[in-house]
Amino acid sequence: MRLEPINLFDYEARARPLLSHNNWEFIEAGAMDEITTARNRSAFEDITLRPRFLIDATERKIATTVLGEAISFPVMISPTDGHGLAYSEAECATARGAGMSKTLMMCSTSSHCSLEEIAAAATGPLWFQLSHRGYGPTENLVQRAEAAGYKAIVLTIDAPIPTPKERDIRNRFVRPGEMGNFREFLKQTADTGDDVDPPNWEMPSAPPLTWQDLEWLRSLTNLPIVFKGVRTAEDARLALEHGANAIMVSTHGGRRMDTTMSSIEALPEIVTATAGRVEIYVDSGVRRGSDVLKALALGATAVSVGRPLYWGLAVNGAEGVHHMLELLREEFNRAMAYCGQNSVDDLEERLLNIPREWGPVRTENDIVERLPF
Amino acid sequence: MRLEPINLFDYEARARPLLSHNNWEFIEAGAMDEITTARNRSAFEDITLRPRFLIDATERKIATTVLGEAISFPVMISPTDGHGLAYSEAECATARGAGMSKTLMMCSTSSHCSLEEIAAAATGPLWFQLSHRGYGPTENLVQRAEAAGYKAIVLTIDAPIPTPKERDIRNRFVRPGEMGNFREFLKQTADTGDDVDPPNWEMPSAPPLTWQDLEWLRSLTNLPIVFKGVRTAEDARLALEHGANAIMVSTHGGRRMDTTMSSIEALPEIVTATAGRVEIYVDSGVRRGSDVLKALALGATAVSVGRPLYWGLAVNGAEGVHHMLELLREEFNRAMAYCGQNSVDDLEERLLNIPREWGPVRTENDIVERLPF
Amino acid sequence: MRLEPINLFDYEARARPLLSHNNWEFIEAGAMDEITTARNRSAFEDITLRPRFLIDATERKIATTVLGEAISFPVMISPTDGHGLAYSEAECATARGAGMSKTLMMCSTSSHCSLEEIAAAATGPLWFQLSHRGYGPTENLVQRAEAAGYKAIVLTIDAPIPTPKERDIRNRFVRPGEMGNFREFLKQTADTGDDVDPPNWEMPSAPPLTWQDLEWLRSLTNLPIVFKGVRTAEDARLALEHGANAIMVSTHGGRRMDTTMSSIEALPEIVTATAGRVEIYVDSGVRRGSDVLKALALGATAVSVGRPLYWGLAVNGAEGVHHMLELLREEFNRAMAYCGQNSVDDLEERLLNIPREWGPVRTENDIVERLPF
Amino acid sequence: MRLEPINLFDYEARARPLLSHNNWEFIEAGAMDEITTARNRSAFEDITLRPRFLIDATERKIATTVLGEAISFPVMISPTDGHGLAYSEAECATARGAGMSKTLMMCSTSSHCSLEEIAAAATGPLWFQLSHRGYGPTENLVQRAEAAGYKAIVLTIDAPIPTPKERDIRNRFVRPGEMGNFREFLKQTADTGDDVDPPNWEMPSAPPLTWQDLEWLRSLTNLPIVFKGVRTAEDARLALEHGANAIMVSTHGGRRMDTTMSSIEALPEIVTATAGRVEIYVDSGVRRGSDVLKALALGATAVSVGRPLYWGLAVNGAEGVHHMLELLREEFNRAMAYCGQNSVDDLEERLLNIPREWGPVRTENDIVERLPF
Repeated sequence: MRLEPINLFDYEARARPLLSHNNWEFIEAGAMDEITTARNRSAFEDITLRPRFLIDATERKIATTVLGEAISFPVMISPTDGHGLAYSEAECATARGAGMSKTLMMCSTSSHCSLEEIAAAATGPLWFQLSHRGYGPTENLVQRAEAAGYKAIVLTIDAPIPTPKERDIRNRFVRPGEMGNFREFLKQTADTGDDVDPPNWEMPSAPPLTWQDLEWLRSLTNLPIVFKGVRTAEDARLALEHGANAIMVSTHGGRRMDTTMSSIEALPEIVTATAGRVEIYVDSGVRRGSDVLKALALGATAVSVGRPLYWGLAVNGAEGVHHMLELLREEFNRAMAYCGQNSVDDLEERLLNIPREWGPVRTENDIVERLPF
Repeated sequence: MRLEPINLFDYEARARPLLSHNNWEFIEAGAMDEITTARNRSAFEDITLRPRFLIDATERKIATTVLGEAISFPVMISPTDGHGLAYSEAECATARGAGMSKTLMMCSTSSHCSLEEIAAAATGPLWFQLSHRGYGPTENLVQRAEAAGYKAIVLTIDAPIPTPKERDIRNRFVRPGEMGNFREFLKQTADTGDDVDPPNWEMPSAPPLTWQDLEWLRSLTNLPIVFKGVRTAEDARLALEHGANAIMVSTHGGRRMDTTMSSIEALPEIVTATAGRVEIYVDSGVRRGSDVLKALALGATAVSVGRPLYWGLAVNGAEGVHHMLELLREEFNRAMAYCGQNSVDDLEERLLNIPREWGPVRTENDIVERLPF
Repeated sequence: MRLEPINLFDYEARARPLLSHNNWEFIEAGAMDEITTARNRSAFEDITLRPRFLIDATERKIATTVLGEAISFPVMISPTDGHGLAYSEAECATARGAGMSKTLMMCSTSSHCSLEEIAAAATGPLWFQLSHRGYGPTENLVQRAEAAGYKAIVLTIDAPIPTPKERDIRNRFVRPGEMGNFREFLKQTADTGDDVDPPNWEMPSAPPLTWQDLEWLRSLTNLPIVFKGVRTAEDARLALEHGANAIMVSTHGGRRMDTTMSSIEALPEIVTATAGRVEIYVDSGVRRGSDVLKALALGATAVSVGRPLYWGLAVNGAEGVHHMLELLREEFNRAMAYCGQNSVDDLEERLLNIPREWGPVRTENDIVERLPF
Repeated sequence: MRLEPINLFDYEARARPLLSHNNWEFIEAGAMDEITTARNRSAFEDITLRPRFLIDATERKIATTVLGEAISFPVMISPTDGHGLAYSEAECATARGAGMSKTLMMCSTSSHCSLEEIAAAATGPLWFQLSHRGYGPTENLVQRAEAAGYKAIVLTIDAPIPTPKERDIRNRFVRPGEMGNFREFLKQTADTGDDVDPPNWEMPSAPPLTWQDLEWLRSLTNLPIVFKGVRTAEDARLALEHGANAIMVSTHGGRRMDTTMSSIEALPEIVTATAGRVEIYVDSGVRRGSDVLKALALGATAVSVGRPLYWGLAVNGAEGVHHMLELLREEFNRAMAYCGQNSVDDLEERLLNIPREWGPVRTENDIVERLPF
């Protein structure tokens, strides 16, 4: 009998031959020279754990809440473009997989399934990731997300312009399928005679969303808003001032802008800047359960995974997503046990040694120590 | 005539073709991505010696004592699982090899030979490594070890849960042979009608041993207790408070939890935290005589070796273990001579340059400089 | 249809098979072990961006001026030896390519075309790079440059002696063609009966130009003088004292002296030393638009590119140079957008994280922090 | 026509096929894992030059003196074992090569030619390297060296015990030829009936030379004594106290003890400790003219080369040694020119940037900053 995948890298290796070259490259690629994508991984590996022993940590509490939503462990599904790239049932399968693992899925504006279809398939909580593509579409999407039972809006701020990855350009990559969230909208605007350009996978809005628009965005919904893509203390402070309910530190998997720091390197200054006033999440580079512990010890409430969901989907649909998450759960449990931790609520930075090269950083107003020492 | 192995890496290279693939991988593998296993080696190599000359160091004292036991040089045998993996006579051969080199062997709970068999074969001092697998088995093992003449209990604290290595999972590795220490115990409990699960190689105890159990453990024996697996100043302080007679800094060869620091990187903070109140030993990554000097200069009383004993056994049984140890002795002697040192009792940190990247670390209570400058 | 090159490395890859081995190696090679050449690239990659979001940066001002000359974006063409190595029309084609991109070209003393020919072909501003080869030739060149409409003299200071690259020596590389700027001069001096050695590609002047000669150089022309090749705070201060109108930080692409720092590493101390009194430019290693932003954020007014112009020329003549520049423009625009920047005039060092290893440096008078913190 | 070697690495590459495998390996090998040997090279490469321009450095003074002996540039020949390994005329050829370059050769106790033969062949100054092999041989050697016109005794202190390199052991390397310096001595002692063991290549003396013996050594000769192999501030201070006339910082090419620092890394603390009271020389890893400048800028008076002399000998006898030295001279001249230096007497540390990782070191008495900042 063939062995099941035993870690996320196994899923990656098994997904590769199951996907077309172009789809595979779309999933794997990072921006330009892929320096940030590589750094997202190496930075996690450079942090070391300070394990603690002779503590009974068999009754571990790893369930937590994110903006009040219960999740069974602090790993969520990041919003990523059309999951039909990896599996025919697309986001509906992902949502079922996330639900089996009792965790939350963030659904992308650029999904193959519509947000309503995903909501119908889902058995766990959902947040809606918003790529602003103009006032009309945004209003439409936000109101539909709220109506469909999504619990938060995840506003992507780190994609101000279209920046196709170089591997995709070389492959003359054409995304398969249509954008599920715009099928009805296009028909509707056609009916009303409004002059709305059909959104495509890449096109950002003109004019782009700015800090000045956030009051308007707030007015559209009562849902909490998560700012995704924050990478500096400066933007973290601005997000707080503009009513952010949570912040997601992300490099977009290194897929948009190269040579930025990794997410986990940026996390400490953002934790310092926000001083506990909002929940912080992290994605980009999470592949091992110990990464989850590291992020939480540095102040995150939860992490999420992007590329691995495609791998899980490609290998085994909803079951693959579920199993991929369960591997992370098992590894995270193990890391908790080795660090003698009984609860995700107690993880502290003293569980880690941070590379000394991670010196202080210089922000707009001041020099910020990465860690408070 | 074929050349004898001239260093430990030779033993490693020669052992490989003599062992089955699965046994070989069991011995070599580290946990997960094997980052800590690699780091155990690179960290030793990154420390540099400060050699001192024109000193007559021909009358070197390299013999020392560990908890009062005389050993001919400060290298011991670490406790490792069933030596039958490498050689038919298993731990009995290892014990004879250690005895030939007049050093101490730590015998694992998970040995192929029983502790009594090893004691009968041994010609040097023995300590018994205890993996707690429940109150009954522990009481049984500790009392038998004391009765059989073992001089200390080496309590492994850094294996709170079973964590099979990924290479072993891929190999569907099944450990050959039975656990020597439980043959009689199982028969005995069967006779009394007690309901005791047969221990297996991997199963940890439920409930696990905690700091609260140490008074009970103390009550079982008059033997000194060595805490093996301490990796932080915090646990070192707790070990002292709970009556540790010695501390062994170990990463378990990087075989249990990945991305922890290497042992030699952790040593300084533990030396600082214990301030000379107990002896400190180190294993994980020792392959050269200069490593021994480095560990002692940083405050250890002795080091021990794990994987290399399998290599010695595989190549030449007890003689192989003995010769492997003698190579380390020769190299250590050489390092002593180059550093102008006449006695292991005089080694000080000023014999080393520590990489600047090894900055201060942040412990529970405070920031601890790795070295006192 | 074949894909157009999508970044500068594509141009490099496509140029290779189009050039003879010797010409290719002449272009690519660095001095000796090529350590500085490699460092010019890695240092840029080690700096990370601090992206800023939710700012409308669609109306970006990337046009700037260099010594009053308008350029459409802060990337210029560095002076490099005979462009006929890569393309038959040589510098005339380069000048047309630069003009199409509305930027400035610095023309080398060692060009294949004469400075007058280049001026006739050019549609954008030109500066004349001066390699001092004796008082007579320098006077001749400077006056001709001024007469031909060149707007500044770029005095190369970092080539005091001939230092052929080792790859060129191995190839017994013979530069094709004649030096365009000396055709008339040689004829003219022959006519006057003056005893002037015919300049060759490599021969520096005897005696070499020194700080003492700068007053004389100043007296030859009203054009501003840019000091090219400054790599230390000390020389930057001296350049100011000797009336430099601008400074160009350059390692000569690592082609002359090995194991100096990269240009971008040297930039901060030079910015500190000159305290805003003159414009600073940087070349050596610029390959990505984000490099441009990094240099400007550290205090440069503009950057320029050397080897890439050969690649553009080889692939497609003037159009290739133009397209190569447009790729940089597009990438720079993208980096500006991701950093939320509307104007090249506002770029500040707080947009970057600098590797901590870039510690302070020790100059003649003092220790200079690389960055003012 | 075949190209002449253009740098020292060319000599290395060309020597290889000319030497037997075992002789080649003897020359190239370092101790054990060869970490120090590699570090000797990488440490030089990690230091960067701070070039200075617009200075007329055409009248460079690169001649210097070492203990009053004039040498034409600050590169000498290190003492190394029997040169017959590389060339039949052995040290006599080396001496002629050094003389052609007007520099000094240090002749090894373990030479193939006798010291008298070398003196007869030499046209430049000679120092005699002394490996103490007992009081009788040392007295004999020192007095013969003085009689033969050697100008200093270079006392090797960093080889307290025999430590054959592992590559030599694997090769069962047997040194060809006999030790020239002991032919007469053995015959002489045989004649007098004294019981003297025939010295061999490896055998150190028993008892070894110590600081206490230095008064005795001093009493044997009026020649100045250079302490070769000093690697710490502590031993540098002791050498001064024991009347050292000069100190040679050396790792023995990394051939004796592994994982010590490189020579160039150790130099600064030794310069600080000796505070200008004696001349300092450096060998181990010098391969480029810029290395010479780096060593001198850090406080050395001269450097010397070991392995490269074998390469030069193997390729072309005395001419090869001479040419190898001339390549270094040319490169050193070039480095001087690029750093705007007119005299080896003026080189200062501010010409360099030292990697920040080279932090302070901890010596016996105190923490010593590597550089005085």
